[in-house]
Amino acid sequence: MAASPRKLVVGGVLFPGFELLDIFGPLELFGLLRDKVEITLIGEQAGPVPSAQGPSAIIDQAFAQVESVDVLLIPGGFGVRQVVEHPEVLESLKRLHAGAQFTASICTGSALLARAGLLDGRKATTNKLSFDFPVAQGPRVDWQRRARWVEAGNIFTASGVSAGMDMALALIQRIWDRSTAKRAALEAEYIWNEDPDHDPFAPE
Amino acid sequence: MAASPRKLVVGGVLFPGFELLDIFGPLELFGLLRDKVEITLIGEQAGPVPSAQGPSAIIDQAFAQVESVDVLLIPGGFGVRQVVEHPEVLESLKRLHAGAQFTASICTGSALLARAGLLDGRKATTNKLSFDFPVAQGPRVDWQRRARWVEAGNIFTASGVSAGMDMALALIQRIWDRSTAKRAALEAEYIWNEDPDHDPFAPE
Repeated sequence: MAASPRKLVVGGVLFPGFELLDIFGPLELFGLLRDKVEITLIGEQAGPVPSAQGPSAIIDQAFAQVESVDVLLIPGGFGVRQVVEHPEVLESLKRLHAGAQFTASICTGSALLARAGLLDGRKATTNKLSFDFPVAQGPRVDWQRRARWVEAGNIFTASGVSAGMDMALALIQRIWDRSTAKRAALEAEYIWNEDPDHDPFAPE
Repeated sequence: MAASPRKLVVGGVLFPGFELLDIFGPLELFGLLRDKVEITLIGEQAGPVPSAQGPSAIIDQAFAQVESVDVLLIPGGFGVRQVVEHPEVLESLKRLHAGAQFTASICTGSALLARAGLLDGRKATTNKLSFDFPVAQGPRVDWQRRARWVEAGNIFTASGVSAGMDMALALIQRIWDRSTAKRAALEAEYIWNEDPDHDPFAPE
C-alpha cells in the first residue's frame, strides 16, 4: 500500500474580535478538500476566542507550539486594531510566513501583514470601507483600491470579508489546479467571481 | 434617554460535524447588524463542538437553557446524519421553532426540519449534491430541485452551503427592510444573488 501523501497544513490565525466570515469562508473551501488539507487554528494562546460577531471558536495551538504551516490565513475584524500593537504576534506571523508556501490575508487582516513589513514593495488590497487603517500600517505598500484580491508573489490579499472566498479559490487553483477549485466551489454551491479585477465594491 | 429596543436574538444550532460556512456565513451577515442583533449558539450541551472541516466553535447554551429565540438557524454538514436520530434534539427544534418569528435551514440542515415534521406540506429546498438524504427524511415535503432558497411562511430553507448567505439577506430584508439587507451585503462586500429562482447548481 502506498503511503498517503502528507496533507497541506492550513493555519488560520485567530484573535479576539476576528471577523467570522473572513476566516471561515476560506476554511470552508479548503476544508472541502478533505483528502488534501488539514486545518489548524493558531493564536496567542490555545482555547476559546470570541469573534467580532459574538460566536467563539477554539484556538488549537499557540504560536509557540507551531513550527510551520503550508498556508497561513489571516482574517480581519475590529480586533486587528489591537493586534497590530502586539509585537510578538507580528514576529510570529513573520516566522510562519517565512516557512509557508503561501500567506493570505482577508479584509483588514492585511493591516497585520503590512505592520509586520511583509507587504513592503508589494501590491496588496484590503477592505474598501475600512481602507485607511490598513494603508496607515504600510506606507511602503502598493495599495490597490480596485481589486477583489491581489496576488503578489506568494502573498495573496483579499478585499473585504466575502472576497476572501474568491481569493481562497484562486489560491486552491494555484496550489493544485482549476478543476480542484471548481470542485470546491461546486460542493459549496459558491458562485465564484473568478476575476480579481471585478470589484463591485471599489470606489467610483 | 429612551430605552434601547430589545435586540433580535438569533440562535444558531451546532452539533458535531456541522458545516462551517452554513452557519457562519449567515451569522456574519446578521452579526453586522450590531445594534439590532444578538447571536447565541445552541446545542445538546454547552462547550466546544468540532465542525465538519475541523475547526471547533463553542456552544453558548444547551437547548434546555434556552427559553426562546427570535430566529432559529440550522446548518447542515455530515453530522446531520447522526442528529436526525436524536429525538431530544428534534423536540428542542420543534419547541424553539414554535416560539420563533422565523426558522431557517441551510444545506442539509433541512433534513432536521423535515425529520421533525416542520416542513410537512411546505415547499423547501436543500443541498443539490446531497438531495436524496434530506428528501428521505420528509416524504410529505414539497421539495424544490431548482431554488437558491425557498420561503414558505415563516420557514426559509436554503440550498447548499453558500446559498445560506443569499437566504440570510432575504431574511434580513423580510425582518427589517431592503436597505438593511443591502447595507449588510455592502459591509461584507458580498455579491448578493437576490433572486431565489437563480440557482446555478440545480440539475439540468
